[in-house]
This record gives sequence, C-alpha cells and structure tokens, in this order.
Amino acid sequence: MKKHLLFLLACTTAQFTFAQQNDSVAIRRIANEILSNSYAYEDLRVLTKKVGARLAGSQGMVKAEKWGVAALKAAGADSVYMQECMVPHWVRGTKEEGKILSNRRDFVPPLNIAALGNSVGTGAKGVTAQVIEVKSFEELDKRKEEVKGKIVFYNYPFIDTHVKTFNSYGDAVKYRGQGASRAAKYGAVAVVIRSMSHSTDNHPHTGSVNYAEDAPKIPAAALGLKDADRLSKRVASDPSMKLYLRTNCVKLPDTIGHNVIGIIRGSEFPDQYITVGGHLDSWDLAEGAHDDGAGLVQSIEVLRAYKALGMQPKRTLRVVLFANEENGARGAAKYADEAKAKNEKHVFALESDAGGFTPRGFMLEMEAEKRAKILSWKPLLLPYGLYDFDEVGGGVDVGFLHRALGTPMGELSPDSQRYFDVHHAASDVFEAVNKRELELGAVGMAALLYLVDQYGL
Amino acid sequence: MKKHLLFLLACTTAQFTFAQQNDSVAIRRIANEILSNSYAYEDLRVLTKKVGARLAGSQGMVKAEKWGVAALKAAGADSVYMQECMVPHWVRGTKEEGKILSNRRDFVPPLNIAALGNSVGTGAKGVTAQVIEVKSFEELDKRKEEVKGKIVFYNYPFIDTHVKTFNSYGDAVKYRGQGASRAAKYGAVAVVIRSMSHSTDNHPHTGSVNYAEDAPKIPAAALGLKDADRLSKRVASDPSMKLYLRTNCVKLPDTIGHNVIGIIRGSEFPDQYITVGGHLDSWDLAEGAHDDGAGLVQSIEVLRAYKALGMQPKRTLRVVLFANEENGARGAAKYADEAKAKNEKHVFALESDAGGFTPRGFMLEMEAEKRAKILSWKPLLLPYGLYDFDEVGGGVDVGFLHRALGTPMGELSPDSQRYFDVHHAASDVFEAVNKRELELGAVGMAALLYLVDQYGL
Repeated sequence: MKKHLLFLLACTTAQFTFAQQNDSVAIRRIANEILSNSYAYEDLRVLTKKVGARLAGSQGMVKAEKWGVAALKAAGADSVYMQECMVPHWVRGTKEEGKILSNRRDFVPPLNIAALGNSVGTGAKGVTAQVIEVKSFEELDKRKEEVKGKIVFYNYPFIDTHVKTFNSYGDAVKYRGQGASRAAKYGAVAVVIRSMSHSTDNHPHTGSVNYAEDAPKIPAAALGLKDADRLSKRVASDPSMKLYLRTNCVKLPDTIGHNVIGIIRGSEFPDQYITVGGHLDSWDLAEGAHDDGAGLVQSIEVLRAYKALGMQPKRTLRVVLFANEENGARGAAKYADEAKAKNEKHVFALESDAGGFTPRGFMLEMEAEKRAKILSWKPLLLPYGLYDFDEVGGGVDVGFLHRALGTPMGELSPDSQRYFDVHHAASDVFEAVNKRELELGAVGMAALLYLVDQYGL
Repeated sequence: MKKHLLFLLACTTAQFTFAQQNDSVAIRRIANEILSNSYAYEDLRVLTKKVGARLAGSQGMVKAEKWGVAALKAAGADSVYMQECMVPHWVRGTKEEGKILSNRRDFVPPLNIAALGNSVGTGAKGVTAQVIEVKSFEELDKRKEEVKGKIVFYNYPFIDTHVKTFNSYGDAVKYRGQGASRAAKYGAVAVVIRSMSHSTDNHPHTGSVNYAEDAPKIPAAALGLKDADRLSKRVASDPSMKLYLRTNCVKLPDTIGHNVIGIIRGSEFPDQYITVGGHLDSWDLAEGAHDDGAGLVQSIEVLRAYKALGMQPKRTLRVVLFANEENGARGAAKYADEAKAKNEKHVFALESDAGGFTPRGFMLEMEAEKRAKILSWKPLLLPYGLYDFDEVGGGVDVGFLHRALGTPMGELSPDSQRYFDVHHAASDVFEAVNKRELELGAVGMAALLYLVDQYGL
C-alpha cells in the first residue's frame, strides 16, 4: 500500500496527468510481457544460425523471406503477405586475396581484405601495383599526378572523440562510398580503404561502394584495422613494395526479392497505418545479427506483445521486413511507391537499424508540433532508459516513406559504442547480441508505438 | 565561426553560466584525452591476461598489487604507496564435482558447480543426499520437517522485469548469503543455489556465503542456470535421485594484503582528499575484467588524464585500489579507519565497481544540498551519456569511508544489462569488455571529479 502512495506521489511530482498514469501502467504491462516472454532472442538465433547471411539475390534472401513469414505468423499477425520488388544481385565470389609483394625477403602474412559491396572484381589475374596512401580527398587531389596506375589506399581513421559513434561513421564513410571513383578519375587501378570501424580486431568491414557515372569502375576493398596499420608502415618503409589484390565479385542481373509484411488491423482507424520495421537482408560476410536481425525481431516482437496481451491497436500496425537495404534499398522504395500510389494514410514509421544494443532514445524527423507531442511523453519512456530524443533523423528504409508522403519517422537509438566493432563484418554474429539489451530495445519501440497509436501525431 | 555562434546559442538556451562554459571546455579536453590516449584498455589487458584471478591471500593478489604500483607510476602519480591490512585467505581447491545419482540408467552429465566463496568444503568423500528444492525462504520454513539430512536447492530466479538488473540481484542475493545457515538450522547437510544471474549460458557464479554464528557451517555451491533447470526437472521427476557434491575449499589463516594508493597532490587544498577507486581482488574463477579490473583502470585513467594534460587538481586526488572487497572488504575498512585516526578531511569518494559498460550516470549518497550541487552539473555531463542520478548509494568500498566520516560518496552507474551475465563467473574476461565503453566510464568519472575538485561540495 505504501508503495502505491509513493508511486502516486512521484507521479504527481512529475506532473503526470491521469491519462499518463494509465499509459504508464499499459506500457509497464507491455514491457513485462516482452522482458518475460519475448520471442526476439530465439527468433534471432534461428535467423542467424539457420539462415545466416542473406544478401539480396542470394539463396539466403529466399530463406530469410520464409523465416520472416513464419516468424510473423508465429507472433500472431492477422495476416502476412509479401510485396515483390526487383533487387540487385551482387556476388562476392570466393578466394579474395591481398598480399604485400616486396624485394625484401621477410615473411609478410597476407592482408585481411573484403571487396566492398557492388564493387567490380579484379579478374582472375588480380591487380598488382604500387600503393599511394592518402589520409583524405584533399591529399588525393594534391597528389593527383602520382595516382596513375597505382592502388590508392585511403587510411582515414574514425574520429575517436565523438561520443556517438555514428558521427564518426558519418564523417569517414565517404571514403568507402566515393573513394573508388575519385581515385579512378586520376587513373588509379584499384582502391583499398581502412575499414569503417574502431574495432580492436582485424576483420575487414564491407559496405557499398557507389560508382560515379563519369569514372571507370575500379575494384574496391576494405582492410581490417590492424592490416591497415601494417600496410601503412610498409608503404612508408619499403619503396619496393607492391600490393597484389584479387577479388572475384560480379554483378548479376537483377532478380526478384520481397518485403515481408505482417499486420494487426486497427480497431478504430484501420485505414491509418503505423509502420515498424528493419531490413531483411544482410551483408554476405556475417550472420547480420545486429545489422539488422535485431531490428527485425524487435519489430516482430512489438506485434507479438500486442497479440499476447490481447491488445488491439486503434490504427493498423504494419511490421515491415524490408528487402535490400544494404545495396539498393529497393524494398523501401517499393513500399513507399505503393503507399503513395494507393494514397495510404501513414501516421508514423519507426525503424530499428542501429543494432540490438541497450536503447537510449529515438531519432525523430517530423514537424515541430509532432515532435513536441512525442517529447511530452518522455516521462513515460525514461523508466526504460530512454532519455535521448535530440537527434534528427530516421532510418534508411522509413526515409523513403518520409520523403514520398511526409510521414513522420523515427529510429531507435541504441547505445552506439559497440556497433562499428561488428558492422558489416564477420563478427556480426548472434553471440554479439545480449538478450536483455535486445529486448529492452523492443520495449522502447513498443512503448513509443503504443503512445503514437493512442494519441496520433 | 557559425558553429561557434550556434554553440554559444545552445549554451544560452540551456542556461549555462559563463563558469559552466569554461567547465564544458575543460571536460571536453579531459574526455578527448581519455578517448584518444587512454591506457585503461591496455592496463586491463595486462591485469587480466598477465595477472588473472587475484582473490585475497592468493599469489594473484601479490602480483596484482605489483601491477597496481606499476600502473599508477606509469600514469604519472606524484607518489604511490601501499597500505597494509590483514585479509582472509579462502582457497577453492581443485576438482569440484556435482553429480545426479539415480536408479535410472540414463546418462546424466555432471552439473556445473562452483563452491560459494568462504564456504566450507565437503571433505574428500563429498556429500551425497536427497534434494529438496525450494523457491523461497518461506517455502523452506513451511517444509522445515523435510529438510533434515538433505541438500537444499534454492532455485530462485532473477526477476526479469526489473529494467535495472541490480534490483534483480538485490532481490535474489539473500539466497546466496543466508541460504546455507537457514537450511543448516533445519538440519540440511549442504545447499546448492541457482546462480545470481540471468545469463544464457551455464557458468556457475560464485560470491560470498555469510554463515550465521548460531548454525552449523555446511557446504554451499552455485549451479549454472541450465543445470539449475536440469536439476529442478530431475528432482520433480525422479524420486530415486540423490545429489553428490564434492568441494575442497578451505579457509586458511588470515594473511597480509595491501591497498595500493597513488596520488596527485592538490595545489590549493592539499589536505583535502578526493578518493576514487575500485577493488584489486577478484574471485578465483575468472580474470575479473568487469569485476573489478574495469574500476581499477578507470580510476588510474582519471589520474593519468590529469597528468597528461598538465592539470593539477586543487584538492589531493587519491586513487585507491582496495584490497579484498569480495570476501571481507578489509582494505576498505583499513582505509576508513586510518582516515578517521588521522582526522583527514575527505570531500568526496567515488567508486567504480559495477562493470566497464557504457555509463548512464552516478549513484550518490550525501546530504541533500550536496546532492543538489552535483545535480546542477547535469547539463555538463549529459553530452557523455550521463543522465541518471536518481539512485541513492555508493560502492561497498567507499561505503566504509562514508560511514566512518560522513564523506559524500558515489558510484559510477554503467548500463547494467550485461553485468550479471559475467559477475563472479569464468566468463568475466577481458574479451567481454569493450574499449570505448570502458573509456567512456573513465570520462564520466573524470568529469564528475573535475567538478567536485573545482567547486567542492
């Protein structure tokens, strides 16, 4: 009894309204359901260990789609359907090689490399050339006369003083995206980049290269951080050094993929949609546990919790497992195009694609008064460790809906310290995900979506 | 330039004073030093991999003391000294065994057990007895007539709906501390407990048992969670079942240990002390990376950052690596006793002993106006992810100083989701610590200590 009085007192102090007290109880109920009975961790185990890597166009993609249908059905979706779209089909091929060749007779272990996604391959003979290391595009431009016939090595490290690691990624990722074409314009024959990471291991981190229209397409690969340091030292100390690169990737014709969608029909406004999702594809190197298995199983868990508790949302909740985020985002484009063509009314779209780590808040992008409405709910979310609502943005996939229809969007902001240790690397495995952290992310998403559903935006 | 104007505007909006703007810059400088040049991760690697387990009285303890002296000197301490104290000397011994014996002929793998710290051993013959499983002390009391001659199995799980896992630990840990003596009073011959954890693996988690004066001392051991579930099923289904336990632990005479202390002398108030520390000992099963290698290297890092930046605190900063927190806290008692005997003036004492995870805030325990002063600094700490100052408390070690002298105390509050996965178990290894999370904890500690040093409490 005393505890209840204290609770009410605390609520009064925090200027809770009566409605907020009811919401607080409802959210606690959802949270308890997820923390005690979640399927998310087991769903993720099956996805990562039984399906594994699932790049668009691969056999893994097809298996992942089947997994998604089954998981949504098991969670209790009112209906589950697939939305077809064409997806790119890039294949890494086998036996990638990176070797330091030198007149010196010391033993040099091979470099740990991975072709960047969408990259052209070197051909069976590989590429052998001298290396020019640059720290920036400015340096590349200054030294453009030296580039011809060489392999450009972008050795730009993450800025370690950013507290939020996505800022470091945002700062560095241009070398992965644009590096190949900018070097090719000066006559480079290939590029290697320092991986987009601050890990303490040596895994190379792949991710898309974006070729410009007006430059030759040259092979591009990522190096593990230890090997980037090793190559840098060697370039500086050994004028006889050449780099041998062999990658066997090819781009095949586009093929058919699918968004997988499960819904709960809204009780009051069935024609108003709230979307929550993550992306079904992953890079080919890993199990895609954090990127983005976590986002998938958290989104499915939101639906499952509603069903398990016998709660029906007022608005129709759509869980969307988007196809092909990593190297094309064709699934998201399709979803937005169809929403626009059908003139659907979308209230809010939430994504989870920043890892299954302990949550800290949400990124939001919407008109000011809508944002203010969400911010008024902060006291209801703080008990779940959600305090950070300052960042503007949403995820890549819901961004398409936002641009097409102006739909307010958001993305779960998990703690970011560990994300780029595993992002797009072979280390992104189930074992790197903590069960409770994953579940707490789902709790945060379910809580926010509950409030949006109750009150609209 | 624009960026600076925006920064000033943001500061004005947040009602920063001019002093706070200076503090913001100073804290950013400290944070950058730690995030770019920290020794913490490498110090931790050496401690965990070269010293390893270091329970009070062990050879590891002596090695850890030497490591502490060297690490504090390398960090630039003005002086380093040891403070002697007597410490308990409990030894696990080898070959612990837990076996399900049954008339059934099925194959039953051995149970993964670990004697609780300070427990008596079973003797060479072990203990074989029927098992009575209870979920609570209430159930034990009700069924007291059934206990005599049996092994009591406390199978009380962590409450999974607490968001902060220390609440689950606080709720369950009485079965580890008091379970043996409460069962012994009813004639039990031994106890086994479900480990204090919600891990997804099967490591047993040790930790101290506290024997009551008025009950026989009986052997006590922890079971991994999977084995606790397995034993529970077997007890329910197999009336012929007995449990065989063998533990070989012994308590030897007390021996000599040391607190290791490094200082930077204060420039204005050298006779006022600010203490920051963690504990030097760890349980014998693991490397003690999170518990509490992390707290040690973070505390040392605070000192190193001051020195590296050429900053001198106004008050004397004492980094204390406390002896014997795990099974006696004799080091903390000694430190507080000596502080009291010498009539030292202690301004604040901060501990880090909740793991090297991404920080979320601080627990605090002090008079209301002092707490209010710290809370006024929240805007300066929020950029480092520190927002949670609601919990009342400090660490075990600084608690002695708090009780002896009334010293205001605090403890770093890292995210707690992963702590009880590894706490007191063989899985508490260096590899479970993330470099940036560890460093951000040190940043938070250094920032708070900087402010306390600048303004007092």
